Amino acid sequence: MSAGLVVVGGDAAGLSAAAEARRADPELPVTVLERGPDVSYAACGIPYWIAGQVESSDALVAHDAEYFRRERRIAVRTGVEAVSIDPDARRVRTAAGEEIGYRDLVVATGARPSLPPVPGADLPGVIALRDLVSARRVQERLEGRASPRALVVGSGPVGMEMAEALCDRGAAVTVVELLPRLLPALPEPVAAPVAAAAGAACAEVRVGARLERIAPDGDGLLATVDGRTDRFDLVVLGTGVVPNAEIAARAGCGLGDRGAILVDRRGRTSVRGIWAAGDCATAWHRLLGRQVWLPFATTANAQGRIAGANVGGRARRFAGVLGSWVSTAFGVGFGATGLDPDAAADAGFTPAALHREGRDRSGYIPGARPVVVRLVWDEPTGRLLGGQVAGRGEVAALLHVLSAALAGNLTVRELAECDMGYVPPLAALRGPIERAAAAAIGDAP
Amino acid sequence: MSAGLVVVGGDAAGLSAAAEARRADPELPVTVLERGPDVSYAACGIPYWIAGQVESSDALVAHDAEYFRRERRIAVRTGVEAVSIDPDARRVRTAAGEEIGYRDLVVATGARPSLPPVPGADLPGVIALRDLVSARRVQERLEGRASPRALVVGSGPVGMEMAEALCDRGAAVTVVELLPRLLPALPEPVAAPVAAAAGAACAEVRVGARLERIAPDGDGLLATVDGRTDRFDLVVLGTGVVPNAEIAARAGCGLGDRGAILVDRRGRTSVRGIWAAGDCATAWHRLLGRQVWLPFATTANAQGRIAGANVGGRARRFAGVLGSWVSTAFGVGFGATGLDPDAAADAGFTPAALHREGRDRSGYIPGARPVVVRLVWDEPTGRLLGGQVAGRGEVAALLHVLSAALAGNLTVRELAECDMGYVPPLAALRGPIERAAAAAIGDAP
Repeated sequence: MSAGLVVVGGDAAGLSAAAEARRADPELPVTVLERGPDVSYAACGIPYWIAGQVESSDALVAHDAEYFRRERRIAVRTGVEAVSIDPDARRVRTAAGEEIGYRDLVVATGARPSLPPVPGADLPGVIALRDLVSARRVQERLEGRASPRALVVGSGPVGMEMAEALCDRGAAVTVVELLPRLLPALPEPVAAPVAAAAGAACAEVRVGARLERIAPDGDGLLATVDGRTDRFDLVVLGTGVVPNAEIAARAGCGLGDRGAILVDRRGRTSVRGIWAAGDCATAWHRLLGRQVWLPFATTANAQGRIAGANVGGRARRFAGVLGSWVSTAFGVGFGATGLDPDAAADAGFTPAALHREGRDRSGYIPGARPVVVRLVWDEPTGRLLGGQVAGRGEVAALLHVLSAALAGNLTVRELAECDMGYVPPLAALRGPIERAAAAAIGDAP
Repeated sequence: MSAGLVVVGGDAAGLSAAAEARRADPELPVTVLERGPDVSYAACGIPYWIAGQVESSDALVAHDAEYFRRERRIAVRTGVEAVSIDPDARRVRTAAGEEIGYRDLVVATGARPSLPPVPGADLPGVIALRDLVSARRVQERLEGRASPRALVVGSGPVGMEMAEALCDRGAAVTVVELLPRLLPALPEPVAAPVAAAAGAACAEVRVGARLERIAPDGDGLLATVDGRTDRFDLVVLGTGVVPNAEIAARAGCGLGDRGAILVDRRGRTSVRGIWAAGDCATAWHRLLGRQVWLPFATTANAQGRIAGANVGGRARRFAGVLGSWVSTAFGVGFGATGLDPDAAADAGFTPAALHREGRDRSGYIPGARPVVVRLVWDEPTGRLLGGQVAGRGEVAALLHVLSAALAGNLTVRELAECDMGYVPPLAALRGPIERAAAAAIGDAP
């Protein structure tokens, strides 16, 4: 086989790149090296498998390796770990010592959990959820225990999703957060409904509390938080991730924000022939106008497609991210898009912000649910800069409205005057976004 | 009282105008004349009262006349019908012969049902739903009948909502539509899921069928459709509305699209001192760039506020409508925003359109529901021109995304690259809008 595209990493970014390169160039040899046993799985779906909502992990696998070989003529090789790149010879070396030549190399190595610096963080039974392998370890830990006790460390979206999943599986869940409140990624009025729901469902919620150490105790674990030691059947770490940038860095690729592989808007690294995409790489932020590190599945997919198209000969530039994410835990959806006031101020804007409560349908319709919308805008120009949303119900779509508004550079006035359709059971006459936007322009009671 | 603002009509547009004028000018005398017994009611909520979902019609009344008098110092007078305007003397005459002077007059007389030109269309028991008075007539007709038979004429959004409401109340419902399929306001692939749900729930659906006559029969009605006569307990007309423009026309106000009162973007008619807003008036269409008649509650509210602000001394221009509407019937939400291909072609665009099915969440999450999204765009520029959506679940928010995209003049490429957040239980990795937009730019399998 002549040297074509070699992709390192077989999940969202890697397989998007491989598939798009194949589409763009039907003749290009495409090889994907994945060190784990699984490819093309929905990592974001793992909590719903743990919760028992999704029956089998098979449902989370969009396509297996065989599908890519047969239907796409992409040589997907699982259990093959790339350990180094020779950019001059254009060769990848694997852990088994194999040398694989490439014309183009896409690094899509993802991110790995950032373990808290405490003794015992690497014990069996302490699991940082990242892939199907770690998810299977959680399942094994839960199996056969009638009422397991679980400790979740960290209350970002992943921590909250896992806390809910473990509650759904019948576990008594304790959540520990180092900062003084749950879900510190969101402003207080937006985080509040999530925190209230978590407090009602969990056995214990401890904020402003530090995990100090974990020790083995028979088939369980002893975790010490702020000097108090309790026994758990498993500990789930939701303490963030760091980019797997080492293989690219050793090949000479420049690094950017938070140590991620620096790429341009086509996905090129600083080394000729090497591209990067997904959680290991930076992404163009269209509001900040610079490369940032924001590891989301949506970005990984989009960046993978861009890199693959360019490798395949179709010049394409990444439109960039808005920093959009959404999550749900304990029946409350929450998320953000665009900038928060701090990021906006750093970027040279003069941000203003407010929040309003609204309802997702007319108040007289049974089941109307409260939603909190916070808007961030540039005070001198009125330009919308971001939004954060939380509430029971379908808040993802509210965030999508704000993403579309950001993509169109709407002002808060234009957002208030958007002409959104209304019917009582599905939308309020003035929905929560319109209410917040109207308030932002001083046009509401 | 010195001559101030007089508003003719006490619902959405009229009371919005009155309230906004009051806010803008705390000293302005404001009088609202409403010929009916009710003010400030949610006409769009009537089907949910008929259905039994909303317990009392009181829930549909946002504020009663007393509230406006007491809290807003707006003299709301119900049961007072304005019959003519003397624009030179700036006086309104009421049916009782009273003369009321004004400095500014806002005509907010709404629209009335357009009755089909058949014998018996004005019989008692044949009800065109428009206001609380007509809704009470429906309730009276249903009361005490164990399994009423109802005929719904017309399958626009109002007809479909009423058909569902009557089914929910236990009626055996027949729907008659003159055109060859249900919900002709939407393109076939978008109307299809609504039609399928209606077909399953209704006793009978007759399309391409003409209502020929209605005759009384004891306490019931005999309706003849395409030569076949059946007995019904009530007939509900959903055959459209026409603007109540006569009082303004007789005062010399110019008329526009479909005979509605022609206004400019501030709400001014062609006659000095006379303004108009809501279903009786035209509205600026920002994509067509002209005044059109599209009677929706959202527009009435927005226009009323604009006219009121201008009367109160705050110069404001109406941003304009996009033609956004949404409805739901038989568990399927549906609606549209922007232009359909015919309207786009009439406006000088070169429209293209396609539809795609997607899901409102990841396919492996139980309860993921199919959604059809159709996009219309300008082929040479890629500019999004409109969209139509149908599906089970929260489709209003999908339409709001498209409205925001239209407000921002996004191209279909920009819509596809919008960076929308994703979490499996609330949103698919590539949602139905993104899928359709990707297909529109040839960027999807």
